[in-house]
Amino acid sequence: MAKVRLFIDHPLAAGQPVPLAAAQAHYLSGVMRMRQGDEIAVFNGHDGEWAARIVQAGKRGGELLALDQTAPQRNPPDLWLLFAPIKKARTDFIVEKAAEMGVSRILPVQTDFTNSERIRQDRLQAHAVEAAEQCGGTFVPTVDDLAPLARLLDGWDASRRILWADEAAAGPFDSMAGLPQGPWAVLIGPEGGFSQAERDRLRACPYVNSISLGPRILRADTAAVAALTLWQASLGDWKA
Amino acid sequence: MAKVRLFIDHPLAAGQPVPLAAAQAHYLSGVMRMRQGDEIAVFNGHDGEWAARIVQAGKRGGELLALDQTAPQRNPPDLWLLFAPIKKARTDFIVEKAAEMGVSRILPVQTDFTNSERIRQDRLQAHAVEAAEQCGGTFVPTVDDLAPLARLLDGWDASRRILWADEAAAGPFDSMAGLPQGPWAVLIGPEGGFSQAERDRLRACPYVNSISLGPRILRADTAAVAALTLWQASLGDWKA
Repeated sequence: MAKVRLFIDHPLAAGQPVPLAAAQAHYLSGVMRMRQGDEIAVFNGHDGEWAARIVQAGKRGGELLALDQTAPQRNPPDLWLLFAPIKKARTDFIVEKAAEMGVSRILPVQTDFTNSERIRQDRLQAHAVEAAEQCGGTFVPTVDDLAPLARLLDGWDASRRILWADEAAAGPFDSMAGLPQGPWAVLIGPEGGFSQAERDRLRACPYVNSISLGPRILRADTAAVAALTLWQASLGDWKA
Repeated sequence: MAKVRLFIDHPLAAGQPVPLAAAQAHYLSGVMRMRQGDEIAVFNGHDGEWAARIVQAGKRGGELLALDQTAPQRNPPDLWLLFAPIKKARTDFIVEKAAEMGVSRILPVQTDFTNSERIRQDRLQAHAVEAAEQCGGTFVPTVDDLAPLARLLDGWDASRRILWADEAAAGPFDSMAGLPQGPWAVLIGPEGGFSQAERDRLRACPYVNSISLGPRILRADTAAVAALTLWQASLGDWKA
């Protein structure tokens, strides 16, 4: 059975008591049927993974005792994902996949063809936490609130390059070879694609590189995993 | 609005009448509110994409008239996906993703750590059809029935290489560079990984190449898209 891993928003050190929120205490005692003295793994996003013993866990909360560090902190590369939120289930999936794939920050963007007026940032952040718990990570990417793509580009720091998965790019796959190291963001469009005005603006940005993801039209969640794979395999921590 | 595309199991040629099953006729008239004279796109998996006019569509069925070919037939590379079925929703996703990514045949396999005793092959095949309809493809991958991995390997044609996404592979990402062209299969393990016996057998196969997919543990559906991306970008039709 897979090890139980919990994200804890609390400092971790040997002998450190760690309070448990009611939902986490219920998960351990009610769902996983764990009891006092059982051990789990915890992480807080910056102190690595720790073994912790259940001191008490019930309906109203509980407490852990941190024992010792079992894995060092491992942060993902300086890679952001910009994507246009779509249907709820697909949006959840994109956040989950981004966390698994090793993205440091997730930025939902409004585009000309995006329907969403708002997102549930708290729910998406919780999905990122859950994905980190399940994929064995010690880092949780930040999920930003929804912002217009045009405004993000207005204030963009040109030292961060954008890898644009351009679903309308004709012709062959553009190789990742030769792209520079450094901070990057992957940009995935909405299901209906980008508007002509958006396309013109992206094409004119000197810090934007476009790639084609093959001859078939990929759904946004598939395109996100595919583009992040290409980046991680050639510029990211899959090579490390 | 996206073009309506339907897979039709019927020959397609100019002036060819095409009978509609009740479910498809209902989809066009009841769900999409289309009427006699409206045009849709159809494909049958081997004759490319055709424009077709609705002659009649109602509750009990209907008929189209094929007009002319709007896109040539495009088949994916000779690439199979072998994966161990997991929870229902994730299994559906893997089939959907495989169709989008351009796989020609999908083989669900039983492994030592697979729980599934059986799958709903018909339901998975329907998911592959739906994915082809949505991703603009003209090809539908075949979904095999569940078969034990060991038996598949017993009868394996060694001219088809296997790219094994080995979640326990230590060390750096192994580059795709230098792998030969030809028929391939991508193999994705179950969430619990492969057994030691399976690992030993795969390692001993001369036609198996393993790759690591980075330092985080990927869910099976994420791993499938990631491995297929690497294959398509270096050996498949993304370069064409």
